[in-house]
Amino acid sequence: MDQIARANAFQQLHLGPPILVIANAWDAASARVFEHAGIRAVGTGSAGIAFSHGFPDNERIPRDVFLAATREIVQAVGVPVTADILGGLGNTIEAVVATVKDVIAIGAVGINVEDGTDDGPRLLDLAQQVEKIRAIRDAVQACGVPIVVNARTDSFWLKRGDRNVWLRTSIERANRYREAGADCLFVPSVTDRETIGTLVAEIDGPLNILATPGCPPIAELQQLGVRRVSVGSGPMRAAMMLTRRIAEELLQSGTYTRFHDDAIPYAEANRLFGD
Amino acid sequence: MDQIARANAFQQLHLGPPILVIANAWDAASARVFEHAGIRAVGTGSAGIAFSHGFPDNERIPRDVFLAATREIVQAVGVPVTADILGGLGNTIEAVVATVKDVIAIGAVGINVEDGTDDGPRLLDLAQQVEKIRAIRDAVQACGVPIVVNARTDSFWLKRGDRNVWLRTSIERANRYREAGADCLFVPSVTDRETIGTLVAEIDGPLNILATPGCPPIAELQQLGVRRVSVGSGPMRAAMMLTRRIAEELLQSGTYTRFHDDAIPYAEANRLFGD
Repeated sequence: MDQIARANAFQQLHLGPPILVIANAWDAASARVFEHAGIRAVGTGSAGIAFSHGFPDNERIPRDVFLAATREIVQAVGVPVTADILGGLGNTIEAVVATVKDVIAIGAVGINVEDGTDDGPRLLDLAQQVEKIRAIRDAVQACGVPIVVNARTDSFWLKRGDRNVWLRTSIERANRYREAGADCLFVPSVTDRETIGTLVAEIDGPLNILATPGCPPIAELQQLGVRRVSVGSGPMRAAMMLTRRIAEELLQSGTYTRFHDDAIPYAEANRLFGD
Repeated sequence: MDQIARANAFQQLHLGPPILVIANAWDAASARVFEHAGIRAVGTGSAGIAFSHGFPDNERIPRDVFLAATREIVQAVGVPVTADILGGLGNTIEAVVATVKDVIAIGAVGINVEDGTDDGPRLLDLAQQVEKIRAIRDAVQACGVPIVVNARTDSFWLKRGDRNVWLRTSIERANRYREAGADCLFVPSVTDRETIGTLVAEIDGPLNILATPGCPPIAELQQLGVRRVSVGSGPMRAAMMLTRRIAEELLQSGTYTRFHDDAIPYAEANRLFGD
């Protein structure tokens, strides 16, 4: 399938129900395993990629390492891949547009762009973020591939002020980003059903929810009208915890159950990568 | 600690008891988690690194990707790191020595070099492998860092012929590699106590056993006289299975227990990488 066909397929997956389930990969192996298990669209995750390469989250990873990791994930699967570009990896509109062009050139068919920054932490200026999304939309249209632009707003994620502020800010920003050309609106860190219902009602576009602890099951999210759910760095952090448990078992009891009892066999793992 | 001090520390860890426990990392995150849990020496693992970057095992991964991954693992930890270089990533002695110099330049203080190839699969010619190990030993001495050379022999791993052949071949090859300058001898795929005891008795140097399924617990390996145990790609393949289980749960029950119930929290994960 070529990139335009994959992008169209990814756009279609946003027109549900059924709700679109995006699994966020941190390397080629996780992406391939997700696809093999039946996941229909893969996202990259900034935190998982950063950890995998030895960096904390939030644009500390060198740009070339970030892009190489994104490329490996795109090349590992046949399903659509959406690339998390954080705030855009640049301080100017031009730099952000360059990042968007880079991930499109890599083969991604979606991008996540966020309005929170750990410099504060705070939300980026609304007018500037609207301008950024409009520029991204223009760049996407110019490239001829119908990339899904997922605009993330971080009021709940950053938790500055109180819950009413987060809700009001999220709705206002999501709607401004929609007007600026975003295809989907992402509000991470919201898990209570009432707030999710309010976001669905008040935001004029498809809503993406992050499956953080406390999040309703996927069927309930679908009933609430959520169009897309993603998992963020949760799976990578679970894999890291398993890695820790394996080390603790080696050092404490000197046994191997945590990696012998439920692992993909060596020959099967090789076959997953075309051997 | 500089590289010479780390290399000396790594050499010392082979003079036990206690047996040296090496956890094999596939990326910077797994290496950092292993070290943080108390692991005193990290190995890279060829299979885990290959899978993480989307390739099957056995020298299919591009050399630059392999070296970059090895560098990220070395840079992620303060403990000694030994680099798995498979057969040496080259068809000539000069190419293998170049690989050894590359991983030393990266900061590794040990190397694993093996005599099995999936071209067959078969064991590489013994005289040529002895020559290779002697050349590696000379290169290590010339560089002035007391790198631990761990020579792996793959008779049991490849399972050509019968068990008596594997045992005789492993002992003969291990002793030839020891004479050629190997510091430690690695015989993967051996798990029965009697055979391990025979290898300890018949091989004139420290023995490394791989903790494949069926392997005795670490305390028993130590009692049998084994000096070093490593885990290979088992932990990475367990992380891949957890990744599969997470996807299956998302798609089948639409819930998140496999990544919510036991994950390193986001803030703690960031701190692990210096945030």
